[in-house]
Amino acid sequence: MTWTAHAERLAAMIGAANVLTTPEQKAPYLTEWRDKFPGKTPMVLRPGTTAEVSQVLTYLYAHDIRSVPQGGNTGLVGAQIPRESGDEVVVSLSRMTRVRDVDPDGYTMSVDSGVVLQQVQEEAEKVDRLFPLSLGSQGSCRIGGNISSNAGGTAVLSYGNTRDLVLGLEVVLPTGEVWDGLRTLRKDNTGYDLKQLFIGAEGTLGVVTGAALKLFPRPRKLEAAFVGLPSAEAALKLFSLARAQAGPVLTGFELMPRIGMEFCLAHLPGARAPLSATHPWYVLMELSSGSEAFPIHDLLEAILTEALSAGHATDAAIAQSVAQVSDFWRLRHGMSEVQKKEGGSIKHDVSVPVASIPAFLNEAIAAVEALLPGCRPVPFGHLGDGNIHFNISQPVGADKEAFLARWDEVNDLVHGIVHSYRGSISAEHGIGILKRDLLTRVKSPLELELMHRIKAAFDPKGLMNPGRLLRETRS
Amino acid sequence: MTWTAHAERLAAMIGAANVLTTPEQKAPYLTEWRDKFPGKTPMVLRPGTTAEVSQVLTYLYAHDIRSVPQGGNTGLVGAQIPRESGDEVVVSLSRMTRVRDVDPDGYTMSVDSGVVLQQVQEEAEKVDRLFPLSLGSQGSCRIGGNISSNAGGTAVLSYGNTRDLVLGLEVVLPTGEVWDGLRTLRKDNTGYDLKQLFIGAEGTLGVVTGAALKLFPRPRKLEAAFVGLPSAEAALKLFSLARAQAGPVLTGFELMPRIGMEFCLAHLPGARAPLSATHPWYVLMELSSGSEAFPIHDLLEAILTEALSAGHATDAAIAQSVAQVSDFWRLRHGMSEVQKKEGGSIKHDVSVPVASIPAFLNEAIAAVEALLPGCRPVPFGHLGDGNIHFNISQPVGADKEAFLARWDEVNDLVHGIVHSYRGSISAEHGIGILKRDLLTRVKSPLELELMHRIKAAFDPKGLMNPGRLLRETRS
Repeated sequence: MTWTAHAERLAAMIGAANVLTTPEQKAPYLTEWRDKFPGKTPMVLRPGTTAEVSQVLTYLYAHDIRSVPQGGNTGLVGAQIPRESGDEVVVSLSRMTRVRDVDPDGYTMSVDSGVVLQQVQEEAEKVDRLFPLSLGSQGSCRIGGNISSNAGGTAVLSYGNTRDLVLGLEVVLPTGEVWDGLRTLRKDNTGYDLKQLFIGAEGTLGVVTGAALKLFPRPRKLEAAFVGLPSAEAALKLFSLARAQAGPVLTGFELMPRIGMEFCLAHLPGARAPLSATHPWYVLMELSSGSEAFPIHDLLEAILTEALSAGHATDAAIAQSVAQVSDFWRLRHGMSEVQKKEGGSIKHDVSVPVASIPAFLNEAIAAVEALLPGCRPVPFGHLGDGNIHFNISQPVGADKEAFLARWDEVNDLVHGIVHSYRGSISAEHGIGILKRDLLTRVKSPLELELMHRIKAAFDPKGLMNPGRLLRETRS
Repeated sequence: MTWTAHAERLAAMIGAANVLTTPEQKAPYLTEWRDKFPGKTPMVLRPGTTAEVSQVLTYLYAHDIRSVPQGGNTGLVGAQIPRESGDEVVVSLSRMTRVRDVDPDGYTMSVDSGVVLQQVQEEAEKVDRLFPLSLGSQGSCRIGGNISSNAGGTAVLSYGNTRDLVLGLEVVLPTGEVWDGLRTLRKDNTGYDLKQLFIGAEGTLGVVTGAALKLFPRPRKLEAAFVGLPSAEAALKLFSLARAQAGPVLTGFELMPRIGMEFCLAHLPGARAPLSATHPWYVLMELSSGSEAFPIHDLLEAILTEALSAGHATDAAIAQSVAQVSDFWRLRHGMSEVQKKEGGSIKHDVSVPVASIPAFLNEAIAAVEALLPGCRPVPFGHLGDGNIHFNISQPVGADKEAFLARWDEVNDLVHGIVHSYRGSISAEHGIGILKRDLLTRVKSPLELELMHRIKAAFDPKGLMNPGRLLRETRS
């Protein structure tokens, strides 16, 4: 059967307007923003309901057609883009945008998987609740993609990863069967927790079509401090102290190096240094509370006073206004962007146990400086989550292409050190195609074998998002 | 080969003293505290290390011998007791009691799975940290059992179930292979999250031998109020209000009915009513904070003032001392025990969406009263988790045995109502043997099929804890 014939049959199920076959129609689904994974597909399908997703997948399964589920197309590892082989159909969830139920008293919300993250946040706000997941791409990423990639973001310290925010899922399996696990229960010990398998599975086990999410009280007070520190060890001590005193009210703890700050001051329009002197490291610390009654400003002052006198901090500034809180965060959020102005940058999204961060940083910085003399490590990130974006800017004046040509070599070196700390080579962004072949080096053969068995249990023909996360066992 | 021959071979691996074969030696491992599941086994094996567990299971797998993993033997559903067929060997983790690592700065602890829960709590306290899991059986249950049953307890509202407290696991598979997933990472998106499958699997997929756990700041301030309410609807409104204002500082929200209070006052030595009048419902509300700086007493007063003026509460007493906090909790913890003095009690451990609790209670109470005229429903529990212990005391003066003979009939009725609210028939205690055959009524054939496929992927011969949670597919 030709693709044209398949398209006609599928159009009869979901409407001709939702079977996209021309290059112009398909383009937005085939281009990802870093242009790393050029996509090719015979067609993009846009089912509008769970029943339609089921019909479509039943058809594709019967005809041995491979498919790639796609949410907002913001993934960074190539899991959502059809491969250049051109034999993978895209199943886009972009028409599934229904908010199914909002329950402020029960602190839950149920939505279609195609709802854009920012809309989920806004729907929660409307009923005076918080959905805490927050990412750079929140205006376009969709909640199903967040779930399939177990997205992290800036609120993990207090609220957890996406996995921790999901109460239930509705999933269409590769066979087209619908698994209804869309429950809003806080406690349910009735067998294997299947939803956990789909979270972070990058669309390899099924298509998430609906999700029940946890909501939280909305924060009403926010305080932030910008702290100068003598060392990464001091940052760990400050974190330990702040968490002991503030507990869940400590909602942000971000580490930045001196060079990152220098890049920000040089390249971010209007950026100003919060502290008068320079320091080897900086921390942006944020407290927030849903209770008006908590004196979090005083608490922040008390933590800083104790840290300064113990030598865990050298200087600190507390934001005097909401605008100043934003200024602090702008420096942190600018860390990635400003590196572009300094030439090539080799990146790693890694995590290690929180208490190992200082040792890891010292070792990894020394190692890359030895490998690439003159290179400029700019490690920054979520210290409280053990998650460091270990980026390395090229030496001043060096050739950008020659520097970037050493990407894999540098990755090998850094991932080796991460592995020696029992860390993760992908803390936030997942595996996809980009890091798939690295998995075999950090996972045991037994663990990979178990993952393959699970894949086979859910997708016996290996048709859904094949070759992402795991190598294909057949070709 | 005879059992005696097997015992000799196994003794060569783990020492003769750790292969228990006499009735006296075996007895403590075969008797569970409610005497519901009389156990029979040829031997109890007590390996002392992960390597020994691996050796033992490799041997059992090679010889097609079935095994039952056992922690502290406190389970309530028969998952840890060898069946009367007498062909299941007990693998006890009671000698694996090593605390492997405590990391206060990283807020983690790694332990052998045989460490008693209370010791885990105490080890955390020694470094000024909290391990929040707290259960009635904490003096004898072991952390591996807590993990395998995804234990709940009294701290779920703020800290989550056991699942939420686990960062990594070490598991010996039914084949004897060791899966090393003992990581302390807060973020790790590198494939299917295998540990989630073992949590709550009731020992059917492997033997948990080690666990990396999350620690939290220790609470330093504690406040509690005992509240009288006009209805379950009011209790939900009070919960919603309290959570909005107190957020994670709201650490307890327990619902009790008037009759439960009457039972306590009649049967608990020295019990006193915290409120002068009687009320249809009561709530025990607790706030606790790791920060000395938070005025949680004032916050509690503010919440109560608002609730009283809105009609969500009729009267309230705030504990004036730590002793009075204990008195309040003693009433709550006495709820189960005092029912024994009132004759037979038919029990259910169920959950529904939090916001459905009032409707569920109204419907279920009316239904059981219609079925068993004169019966006395005593539903109580963790309202904030949607988890109600829906117990029903016999009519005054009725025959106990005749009442208890209707157990299954009443279960059917209540579970049917729970199911109509998309609730769970086992919120905390698991499935084991007790509720295994009920699963087929509340789970779809597809979900059961997926669970069987997962079981087969981890335990191809079906030798580990067979017939628990899932029916055996072969006999």
